[in-house]
Amino acid sequence: MGSNTFRLVVFRYRPDGGFHLVDEIRQAVRLSEGADEAGLRRDALERAEHTARLYAAFCEASEVDEVVVAATSAARDAANGEEAMRALSADGALDVRVLSAEEEAWYGYLGAVNSTTLGDGHVLDLGGGSVQVTQVRGRGLQQAISRPLGAVRMTERYLPGERASRSDLKPLRRKVQKEMAGVRWLAGAGGRMVGVGGTIRTLARMHQRAIDYSLDELHGYVLPRAGLEDLIEAMLELPASERGRLPGLKHDRADITLAGATVISTVMEAVGVERIEICAQGLREGIFYERWLAPADPPLIQDVRRSSVLNLVDEYRADVPHAEEVCRLAHLLYAGLVELGLQRDDPRERELLWAAGMLHDVGVLVDYNDHHKHGFYLILNAGLPGFDHAELAMVALLARAHRKALPSTAPLEGVLEDDDDERLDRLACCLRIAEQLERGRAGGIRDVRLRLDGDAVRVEVTAVGDPAIPLWFAGQEAPAVERAFGRTLEVVEAD
Amino acid sequence: MGSNTFRLVVFRYRPDGGFHLVDEIRQAVRLSEGADEAGLRRDALERAEHTARLYAAFCEASEVDEVVVAATSAARDAANGEEAMRALSADGALDVRVLSAEEEAWYGYLGAVNSTTLGDGHVLDLGGGSVQVTQVRGRGLQQAISRPLGAVRMTERYLPGERASRSDLKPLRRKVQKEMAGVRWLAGAGGRMVGVGGTIRTLARMHQRAIDYSLDELHGYVLPRAGLEDLIEAMLELPASERGRLPGLKHDRADITLAGATVISTVMEAVGVERIEICAQGLREGIFYERWLAPADPPLIQDVRRSSVLNLVDEYRADVPHAEEVCRLAHLLYAGLVELGLQRDDPRERELLWAAGMLHDVGVLVDYNDHHKHGFYLILNAGLPGFDHAELAMVALLARAHRKALPSTAPLEGVLEDDDDERLDRLACCLRIAEQLERGRAGGIRDVRLRLDGDAVRVEVTAVGDPAIPLWFAGQEAPAVERAFGRTLEVVEAD
Repeated sequence: MGSNTFRLVVFRYRPDGGFHLVDEIRQAVRLSEGADEAGLRRDALERAEHTARLYAAFCEASEVDEVVVAATSAARDAANGEEAMRALSADGALDVRVLSAEEEAWYGYLGAVNSTTLGDGHVLDLGGGSVQVTQVRGRGLQQAISRPLGAVRMTERYLPGERASRSDLKPLRRKVQKEMAGVRWLAGAGGRMVGVGGTIRTLARMHQRAIDYSLDELHGYVLPRAGLEDLIEAMLELPASERGRLPGLKHDRADITLAGATVISTVMEAVGVERIEICAQGLREGIFYERWLAPADPPLIQDVRRSSVLNLVDEYRADVPHAEEVCRLAHLLYAGLVELGLQRDDPRERELLWAAGMLHDVGVLVDYNDHHKHGFYLILNAGLPGFDHAELAMVALLARAHRKALPSTAPLEGVLEDDDDERLDRLACCLRIAEQLERGRAGGIRDVRLRLDGDAVRVEVTAVGDPAIPLWFAGQEAPAVERAFGRTLEVVEAD
Repeated sequence: MGSNTFRLVVFRYRPDGGFHLVDEIRQAVRLSEGADEAGLRRDALERAEHTARLYAAFCEASEVDEVVVAATSAARDAANGEEAMRALSADGALDVRVLSAEEEAWYGYLGAVNSTTLGDGHVLDLGGGSVQVTQVRGRGLQQAISRPLGAVRMTERYLPGERASRSDLKPLRRKVQKEMAGVRWLAGAGGRMVGVGGTIRTLARMHQRAIDYSLDELHGYVLPRAGLEDLIEAMLELPASERGRLPGLKHDRADITLAGATVISTVMEAVGVERIEICAQGLREGIFYERWLAPADPPLIQDVRRSSVLNLVDEYRADVPHAEEVCRLAHLLYAGLVELGLQRDDPRERELLWAAGMLHDVGVLVDYNDHHKHGFYLILNAGLPGFDHAELAMVALLARAHRKALPSTAPLEGVLEDDDDERLDRLACCLRIAEQLERGRAGGIRDVRLRLDGDAVRVEVTAVGDPAIPLWFAGQEAPAVERAFGRTLEVVEAD
């Protein structure tokens, strides 16, 4: 029960397996709207009660096993908070827990570190009522502050009218600067920053639309502060009631996003960061992780990237023994290419190859025909938390290039990094040959070694049984080798 | 082991559940190439032996539970057939079964009737060596003929050169006409015709490319004879070795497809049909169905359309109780609209609504966000055998329109029928309101009745418990009702 939005999410999970968001309802309640010294306003409370009742009935009817209800700063800070909580309990059907500022920061942090690779840096969690900034060290929560600088509150205090000019933002910026300047561990700290909350997601969506970004995925998107300032300029040009016309800006957030963007940009400036990584998870997921990962304390996923891949393997019911064998062979081929001096060894590339190897066949779930294309769709649209967008794109493109047409980066230009064209070609080579060697699903290849033989890359295969299939199939990958390394391919049985 | 192609397919199935093609290898062996009175040629046999050995090793290595090996007319008709079979048994690893002409027709028929709604009509199955035409009555195989008019054979006999002119086709057409004229039950019979085999699939793909068809699905595509003749013209313009440049025509079929198209068109003319429905299944699936459906005899899926939908429900792990409840409510709403005279009752529409209701949430498997879009992708790309393309498109578009943006036929123009725009709007109305009424996943709605109240459609809901959620959610569907029926919407509790 946030200061701006009440949101109900339903997770399905197995304690030792994957998890999955299966339902969601969202209402822009504006609980904190017009709150003053007397506390939350009557009409805001009525809206909140109405929604709380609906959610209570939903929870009872849908037979979820466990319901956790959390309220944040609007409820926490109001003079009439206790009364508000009684109202929000929907006649006792909901056991509302008002999070302290520390708890609010903690759960936002848990959502962020369990869905990103953030080891050291900051989490910025901007809600309707408050902003939390957390310092992360070695994945641990080191320091946290919570300040009542939320998007709804700041809109009411600093930008209440239909129109706002650049100079109207100055008092708000000064207010945020002043709040941040007093926090020693924060000012000028630099490093990575992960952004959490509805406002930052909205701004990321707007930025993607503005630059015509080719990947429809918020989590992992990197928003530059300069881009944030451009969005602020664009919002300043329109009256509040018309800002909903801006691509990516929902009508029920059209008025509060300007103040929110200004707070975020000012905090980024104070911390000294020029980019913020969007995290689509947050407080709700943090609360979920605490349960899912119990009794782990702190409830941290050990390896977020690995867990993301295995979560999809599980969801899409991949053939794990086959996938693992393809990974093993692809890594042998990769190592061989490094040994031959055809490429340098890069642990990140090996990891991408592993992820693509584990997921290369998931598209069979849709249809065997074109399953490489279906895998591309499934991976890209499910997402891989912990992988940045260029990496996610690479894994999806590798799955797409594991058979049939040679690799192409065409669908995802603008998402990939500069040298990803040739990276895709090289890694696809390993994946394609590995897949062909494992075409018989036999696990019958004991070892693979590479030699240079004039212009040819010679793959020497040691097999348990008759290597006729692997030799024949793998030999068909000459065009991929030609493209990636400008060499011919021979696949032979080892002496 | 066909006369043109050797193909290995692996099915995974549960005797009481769904089935799924999980692997496939294909080699254009050209077993019948150059066969004469002495039988199959030495070099063709060597190619066949090589591929048979590979497939035998594959089968052993991949640990499939049961292997069925079938050879068709090339092996059946050759003077050295017995010797050929010994070669193709890969030193006894494969137990090759040479199908009689009757068996070849039978399995093609089984593949066709179990993946289409063909009740009465004909199945035309054109292979490399022979063509089978089957008469179907009440889903049963009534009559069948097999003639050695396969695409490879006819190419060798009538169109062996690089170039062919329209007049070169005449002797081939006459040959086919003569063979068909002698079959009483066939000549001028008319009705539905379903086409099976690699040649007809290739021609359908070519036709889809030629008309820039917006759905990438062969099964269920309707190829007009006029379109077939256009493709014949296009092939005549190029030498055989260059026909592979034609969009949709694979190089290893570039030479034999002209003769194949001519045979198909001539048979269609003889039977008196102007359109042929492409069936992507055939002999291999027929052999599979015999096992999967055992001990049923004949092995026929009772209701192909229902089975297709339930197969996807199973594959994509839909929440069946929720889906069934949405179907029930959507049908109550549909019946109510009929009673009010706002639409006429159409059993086919009710069935489409059922299919969409069962499948509306399957996209959650990919991601809850945008799951309506993911469902659209999953349904469209998996396909629904038994539904024609306009129906498949309608089910996918309905799933896409069950939440968020109002329906749009934009992605599939050219696939839909003329009045499908307004059909989609009407059916989406039922589905959306049903989904909202079942938003709480409670099954708490006992009954739904519709009344007209001035300009408004009034939905009167009888609920088991508190109907606050259903009323609130369903009331949000006013825009969908406005669009479909030009009326406002009221959702109220029944007296």
